[in-house]
Amino acid sequence: MSLVVLKFGGTSVGNAEKIRHVARVIADVAEQGNRVAAIVSAMGKTTDGLVELAGELVENPSGREYDALLATGEMVSAPLLAMTLTSMGYPAVSLNGQQAGFVTEDLHNRARILEINTGRVQHHLDKGEIVIVTGFQGINSKGDIATLGRGGSDTSAIALAGALGADRCDIYTDVDGVYSADPRVVPEAVRQDDITYIEMLELARVGAKVLHPRAVETARNANVRIRVRSTFDPDNPGTLVSTYGTGGGSEGGQGGEGQSRAVSGIAADKKQVELAMTHVPDQPGIAAQLFGALASNNISVDMIIQSVRQDDNTNDIAFTVDQTDLQDTLTLLEKVKADMGSGEIYYETDVAKVSIVGVGMIDRPGIAADMFKALAQANINLKMISTSEIKISCLIDQAQADDAVRALHRQFFPEAANDEPKLVDAKVGY
Amino acid sequence: MSLVVLKFGGTSVGNAEKIRHVARVIADVAEQGNRVAAIVSAMGKTTDGLVELAGELVENPSGREYDALLATGEMVSAPLLAMTLTSMGYPAVSLNGQQAGFVTEDLHNRARILEINTGRVQHHLDKGEIVIVTGFQGINSKGDIATLGRGGSDTSAIALAGALGADRCDIYTDVDGVYSADPRVVPEAVRQDDITYIEMLELARVGAKVLHPRAVETARNANVRIRVRSTFDPDNPGTLVSTYGTGGGSEGGQGGEGQSRAVSGIAADKKQVELAMTHVPDQPGIAAQLFGALASNNISVDMIIQSVRQDDNTNDIAFTVDQTDLQDTLTLLEKVKADMGSGEIYYETDVAKVSIVGVGMIDRPGIAADMFKALAQANINLKMISTSEIKISCLIDQAQADDAVRALHRQFFPEAANDEPKLVDAKVGY
Repeated sequence: MSLVVLKFGGTSVGNAEKIRHVARVIADVAEQGNRVAAIVSAMGKTTDGLVELAGELVENPSGREYDALLATGEMVSAPLLAMTLTSMGYPAVSLNGQQAGFVTEDLHNRARILEINTGRVQHHLDKGEIVIVTGFQGINSKGDIATLGRGGSDTSAIALAGALGADRCDIYTDVDGVYSADPRVVPEAVRQDDITYIEMLELARVGAKVLHPRAVETARNANVRIRVRSTFDPDNPGTLVSTYGTGGGSEGGQGGEGQSRAVSGIAADKKQVELAMTHVPDQPGIAAQLFGALASNNISVDMIIQSVRQDDNTNDIAFTVDQTDLQDTLTLLEKVKADMGSGEIYYETDVAKVSIVGVGMIDRPGIAADMFKALAQANINLKMISTSEIKISCLIDQAQADDAVRALHRQFFPEAANDEPKLVDAKVGY
Repeated sequence: MSLVVLKFGGTSVGNAEKIRHVARVIADVAEQGNRVAAIVSAMGKTTDGLVELAGELVENPSGREYDALLATGEMVSAPLLAMTLTSMGYPAVSLNGQQAGFVTEDLHNRARILEINTGRVQHHLDKGEIVIVTGFQGINSKGDIATLGRGGSDTSAIALAGALGADRCDIYTDVDGVYSADPRVVPEAVRQDDITYIEMLELARVGAKVLHPRAVETARNANVRIRVRSTFDPDNPGTLVSTYGTGGGSEGGQGGEGQSRAVSGIAADKKQVELAMTHVPDQPGIAAQLFGALASNNISVDMIIQSVRQDDNTNDIAFTVDQTDLQDTLTLLEKVKADMGSGEIYYETDVAKVSIVGVGMIDRPGIAADMFKALAQANINLKMISTSEIKISCLIDQAQADDAVRALHRQFFPEAANDEPKLVDAKVGY
């Protein structure tokens, strides 16, 4: 008898009718002879409503109180789902984060899970009950409720699957898997049958929104096999995320048997901002000061270019950050500028980062050249480039982002262009 | 430095603006040099919304899941109130029922509080923090959330005040105290400065909705002095409920110094139903069987009349129950009738029970006669009568209930008729 952990997101349980549907999906998994624990998110826009309510009252609520407030969303959906299953003849119990043994670090709004004491979950599973657990939350050493931040419910599910030694963790969402590109931009994008953790991690970091990077990291660390699949098409196997990708796309994949594809996904991130500081004196330690200050303020810097001006022997430093970090970054830059007594600050939000990701590019020189060529043929100028072992990113004009993704898809998934375009739900999770 | 427990009902925290007002009321009490713990109910109609949601999914939800669901209402209002107070410069923390140490019996929907482990509440009070506690809930021996049923938040507040040894417990609501009668029916009704537990208990039982009987019982057992006062008129001292009433109404009270009034309150309950079983064989044990069955089904029977038919030597048994218990009562009566093989069942919902309550009537013979005379002069027929030491109730036609209350008020509060009618909020809690 297998043990599986399922996870259902907020859109999957948005109203009574959808909760009934999710209960049916869970019941079917149980009927297949599985023991089942399911993590559930808050119903639809519940959490947004709570955020708004707090916003009407307080500008900067204390993390402790904010977490106690936000955690109630899942505490509504979980008992509703449990009582529905029970009424259908599948005995179920709901457990909140504390009851399910989720212990977090003493941090609010984006706490990490330290451990899961699975005794109570196991007890109910052993009794043959389906266990519904509130996602996104746990309890810290002070006995206070802590939430896990964005992507928290995915992380809850994967961590629970790891702690229980579950056979798999199925993440049910409103898309039916991980695609080679956002199907709203590239209609012929192919659903991947499988993908590696490291590719999924990079794709998540560069803009694919199917899974949050922290959730993928948790899966990789605990070696939990994830299946991303659709709540509304539960017979579709979706995409398997695990240590080994087989390299075959679901339809017309490029790699044959034993031969992995070079690129497994293409993503665009339009929420980047390019910053530049020019005429920086060519002194040792200036860059260290700047990026040290950014790092200690928890601002992730992605692309970095430093260039020397021949005329006055000063440097220009350019880099990108998330748009959400723009104001904090500007404040820090102003401070660095004041310390130096020179320099000019520029920024540009009208940019996008397009990236190709694939473990196959490790053994294949020339993938970068193929990427630049494809973009050049589409008349797209590159502002910055950054690479890692399995990823190449280019910063371009935002207006050209969709064209860039389509050009790259034609380059790296040439066979897909001949396929029939698929009908894809507009709410695809990219 | 006094320690006070405050309680705010759902209408007091119905939206962001009202939460801000309640925070101000709490802050003012703290400013007066008090340590403050406050119990808060769910915002306005939140709980009704949750009930409706569950009703869309399941006909008879399990008590455990239903309680987990309903308890979330207070888990929203409590952190909102705490963060608001903190932002105003009054450090506050919210605690849910479990965190605040409320241990209940292993029963759902209407669990009783077994004990309160006040360690954590005390810890935060000692740090000079205002402690906001979710009303209506606790945790049972299984670690499951249990709710306390109707009037639960009042009971939470009073029990917490008792456990903390608080100096007083102020129940803030949408009325400014306990009146001699429902001011919507009797405009000249007088607010009582004080009233005894036993009177308040009887008034609550016979239809006054200011406090739930269980809350008053809890106060009497723990000897907690309750003040019923208005959230929207916090300078008004309201009504003190304690062991000793001084017998003076707030305005033109009847009792002088050292002389208690005969009647302290008049109430009508329109949610009663009169049932009758006729032609019951005159055998010993029939009544015991009937009322034993009702009692073991948790149905409270109030007035009982048994009369003998001279013609066939059978009995007629008539009694009243709450309308909510009508269906269960009829089912039981049908069963008793089947067992006996005879009898007819009748019921009438178009009735009301009007009652006068007062500890002063113990020493004053003739109060009952005064009541019957006043009702007779108003042309109101009595269907049933029941009395206790400090209460006399009459069952009458429902259409005459308001007239009856007014006639009784003229009889027992004659001086009030000369007062100016007061402007009373329409949402008065009767």
